[in-house]
Amino acid sequence: MTTMLKTQHCGTLSKANVGETVTLNGWVQRRRDLGGVLFIDLRDRSGIVQIVFNPAFSGEALAVADRARNEYVLAVRGEVVERDAETVNPNLPTGEIEVRIKEIEILNAAKNPPFFIEDGIEIDESLRLKHRYLDLRRPEMQRTLMLRAKAAKIFRDYLDENGFVEVETPILINSTPEGARDYLVPSRVHPGEFFALPQSPQIFKQLLMVSGMERYYQIARCFRDEDLRADRQPEFTQVDIETSFLSQDQLLAMMEKLVVRLFKETAGADIETPFQRITYADAMGKYGSDKPDLRFGLELQDVSDIVAESGVQVFANVIKKGGQVKALNAKGCAAWSRKEIDDLGVFAARYGAKGLAWMTYKDGELKGPIVKFFNEQELEQLKQRLQAEEGDLLLFSADTKKVVADVLGNLRLKIGRQLGLIDDSKFKFAWVVDFPLLSYDEEAKRYVAEHHPFTRPKEEDMHYFDTDPGQIRAQAYDLVLNGYEVGGGSMRIYQREVQEKMFATLGLSKEEAQEKFGYLLEAFEYGTPPHGGIAFGFDRLVMLITGRTNLRETIAFPKTASASDLLTGAPGPVDAKQLEDLSIRLALKQPSAKA
Amino acid sequence: MTTMLKTQHCGTLSKANVGETVTLNGWVQRRRDLGGVLFIDLRDRSGIVQIVFNPAFSGEALAVADRARNEYVLAVRGEVVERDAETVNPNLPTGEIEVRIKEIEILNAAKNPPFFIEDGIEIDESLRLKHRYLDLRRPEMQRTLMLRAKAAKIFRDYLDENGFVEVETPILINSTPEGARDYLVPSRVHPGEFFALPQSPQIFKQLLMVSGMERYYQIARCFRDEDLRADRQPEFTQVDIETSFLSQDQLLAMMEKLVVRLFKETAGADIETPFQRITYADAMGKYGSDKPDLRFGLELQDVSDIVAESGVQVFANVIKKGGQVKALNAKGCAAWSRKEIDDLGVFAARYGAKGLAWMTYKDGELKGPIVKFFNEQELEQLKQRLQAEEGDLLLFSADTKKVVADVLGNLRLKIGRQLGLIDDSKFKFAWVVDFPLLSYDEEAKRYVAEHHPFTRPKEEDMHYFDTDPGQIRAQAYDLVLNGYEVGGGSMRIYQREVQEKMFATLGLSKEEAQEKFGYLLEAFEYGTPPHGGIAFGFDRLVMLITGRTNLRETIAFPKTASASDLLTGAPGPVDAKQLEDLSIRLALKQPSAKA
Repeated sequence: MTTMLKTQHCGTLSKANVGETVTLNGWVQRRRDLGGVLFIDLRDRSGIVQIVFNPAFSGEALAVADRARNEYVLAVRGEVVERDAETVNPNLPTGEIEVRIKEIEILNAAKNPPFFIEDGIEIDESLRLKHRYLDLRRPEMQRTLMLRAKAAKIFRDYLDENGFVEVETPILINSTPEGARDYLVPSRVHPGEFFALPQSPQIFKQLLMVSGMERYYQIARCFRDEDLRADRQPEFTQVDIETSFLSQDQLLAMMEKLVVRLFKETAGADIETPFQRITYADAMGKYGSDKPDLRFGLELQDVSDIVAESGVQVFANVIKKGGQVKALNAKGCAAWSRKEIDDLGVFAARYGAKGLAWMTYKDGELKGPIVKFFNEQELEQLKQRLQAEEGDLLLFSADTKKVVADVLGNLRLKIGRQLGLIDDSKFKFAWVVDFPLLSYDEEAKRYVAEHHPFTRPKEEDMHYFDTDPGQIRAQAYDLVLNGYEVGGGSMRIYQREVQEKMFATLGLSKEEAQEKFGYLLEAFEYGTPPHGGIAFGFDRLVMLITGRTNLRETIAFPKTASASDLLTGAPGPVDAKQLEDLSIRLALKQPSAKA
Repeated sequence: MTTMLKTQHCGTLSKANVGETVTLNGWVQRRRDLGGVLFIDLRDRSGIVQIVFNPAFSGEALAVADRARNEYVLAVRGEVVERDAETVNPNLPTGEIEVRIKEIEILNAAKNPPFFIEDGIEIDESLRLKHRYLDLRRPEMQRTLMLRAKAAKIFRDYLDENGFVEVETPILINSTPEGARDYLVPSRVHPGEFFALPQSPQIFKQLLMVSGMERYYQIARCFRDEDLRADRQPEFTQVDIETSFLSQDQLLAMMEKLVVRLFKETAGADIETPFQRITYADAMGKYGSDKPDLRFGLELQDVSDIVAESGVQVFANVIKKGGQVKALNAKGCAAWSRKEIDDLGVFAARYGAKGLAWMTYKDGELKGPIVKFFNEQELEQLKQRLQAEEGDLLLFSADTKKVVADVLGNLRLKIGRQLGLIDDSKFKFAWVVDFPLLSYDEEAKRYVAEHHPFTRPKEEDMHYFDTDPGQIRAQAYDLVLNGYEVGGGSMRIYQREVQEKMFATLGLSKEEAQEKFGYLLEAFEYGTPPHGGIAFGFDRLVMLITGRTNLRETIAFPKTASASDLLTGAPGPVDAKQLEDLSIRLALKQPSAKA
């Protein structure tokens, strides 16, 4: 190994170092030979500096340097000198100096990399993932990983200061009763039995509250074996938090301060508190989403009352069946072509719309195929409800509440984006609160927990347990940012009689509850404090802070949408002996069955 | 939920708070009724305070409080008052005050716990693990978890300050070629394929060095599916560190400062640097162990040269066969009974000893069954070599080097403990260096890597590749503390020609190397910097800092020696449907085959 180990980092050199002899270690970013003088941009984690080999002062080092190609690893020693005024590079932080090299050692050679090591490359992502170790050399990837580390530190520092104790919970846990998305791990010691990887540390953090730890956190790896989308990974990181003896308001206020600090120290953004709070009902009503993007308006309007008696049969039918008709005013879009409006219909169909009715406001009146079915008064009411003005395009969705919300919520986002209503430099936070505690599962003919069966109902809704459980609102909250859910949690049930009511409402007998949640129920009987918590989606927060749209850009070694690691080839086949040791064998379906 | 949320922590109240009205939340540690006045010790994470219910000032709160039993959760409000001089409790940090309660709410009831919530209980460990949430309420367990969190923070702060970047590496990885101890995770998306859980992030941390991250760390969960011992857990935590562009000496010096800070800030201990360095050869020679407890002497002495020609046939035979004879001087133990010495023989047999020869130094001469086989000169040499004095007991082991080291190394520890030579208040660190790079596997008839195939050989031993590979020492090091290995690592190979030599010596063809380590070898070709690293055993460090002897005491939710979680019952059976989704089925051996 060389004795020429770095005394300085490339990117930190400046005029203050002029005259110093420095030793640098780094990678060749670029080389230029100008009339027998060799210039190399040497790169390390801190940045780039120009080093110079000149027969006048480099001696034998020049010949050695001449063998170096892109991405070679060099150790060099030389003197920092000021550049001539005409060769100063204002685009480079070190551009006022260069280093005249007297000694060099090639620490390692490099094959020509499959893509350039620089920001903003347009390369097939799979090639980047296959050579992730080269992709991570690019400054923007290094900055992202460093920002991620900084964000973790900000979380920890804040939580430490506020009396939260970091506790590690197990990764090898029990499979949950509805563990359809659990990754399973066969046990060698207990043949036929399995561990599961945690989808979250939920049960353990509640047990820590029973343990009297009072305040807990963990930056925890979680696992979910599900069909992947662009913003999901089979393993993901959440900042997991639980506290005893705080009210929901106290906890949310404490978390707001944390988020403010995080965004100030990573993105330089000033976030105002308190964050807007919007009920689940309002979010769905106005934005068609429980994670509304609040950077712009374009709110949905319920027009069911106005259109119910119109001659549009579809509207009338939907309303009779308990559905609704809502509308969106696409301001100034009346001039969109028929093709453009039809495209909106195609888009809407992706979210379940059977059609997309529309009107334009042109030449002082509402126009379009359905206008003829309305009387003057109805049209006037529509104009007022939708604040329609000359040049507007009105879009109508008629269906079940759920479909209407999906269709118009997504149209709202699409049109907002298209109209340039969204300020991408803005971080707009809100708490969505008062989620429903239960939803009715038509198939199973019973209520199911919206969040999980330990979520605490709102005190004032407790009476609905006996009359209309679907009306109960939960002490549950999500933190949304620019249309993304970046955190969520709830206050938990801590009283046995409430827990029993909850289980009974979910259709569980005492025996079933015992079988499914026995150890937890038993724990709850030994003096459980009032408690609640939250989990932040760490990968997604880093993604939003760095202005990315893909979670993979925030993770050092991510998996693809098909849950593979293109670098190492995981997952892969294993030896028959390994399976035998685990008392399992493969049970592959026939290719025919697969097709 | 109550509106009486804590304004103060129980254990922090003092005379400074006298006159204040405080709200406290906590658990009933103990209650005493003295003539109609009720005293409750209220406990939270911070400690205990006495609260008082008296008809004179508590009103209706007294009757409510009277229902409270041990481990009930209370919210109380009242005034802090100074205690009378005669009722001050000097054993309690809050013993100078008490709180006169005016309002109370029972937040939760509690069943009578199966053991007392206090330190130093002598309870069957399985009962504690089954009710871990109660065990963790005990102050010593809470202190341990808080110390663990603090230790993690010290590691992170130091590493952050020194330019290390925290990077999360995957938990779902490839099974390694020799992955006999890998936990496997079947893939749902890729039927018949498996992920493995990492035994360490080794490959990813080296890839991060190839990525130019230069300095990396992670407090990483690792997994090993092996037969468990008292100081092993199926999942464990290591502080994983890797750096580029540092020499071994620079890295070890940097880590020493880290360890010094850790022990100063957690244990209040002053650790001297530089740490002693001892070669593997010396450690094995003098202490019979590669993780010697250096808090005491009692060194082993090689006496092969002295005893080779003696009439003790066993000694002569062993030496002829390439073995050795070593001895240990148990100072002052000549008076041990025959039974006591026989017991040492039984102990030695556990480590492979076929017998344990001995002599005593009594009445000015060596005595014992084997003395008659030695001549005067040999006896004199033995006395001198072993610095034998009146009253000493000399113990001899004759066998292969390995067995002799095991036998006498363990006898040394046992006798050192028995003689009170070990100062338990002392933290004695040392680096064991110059481990052998390779060992010869007699069965496979080839060399195998002692550490892993990427460990860098010492420069000055490189020539042995062509002559005697067993002689090559590695740039590998372990950190030992009081007889435990608490860390270990190595400089890694970064030059292709060295890596190829290494693989060839391990008997790997180029094709095999490619098949086993292809993606890593390819990565190494794109400009790999010199790098190396270390991993600290975090659980074990916390165990030693807190003076425990059992890793389970340092982990919130540990598993038993048979890799079970007694609290949740993990691992457990899963649904047939889950297995079908994963394309596996059980292949349990017949009970008869099992017996």
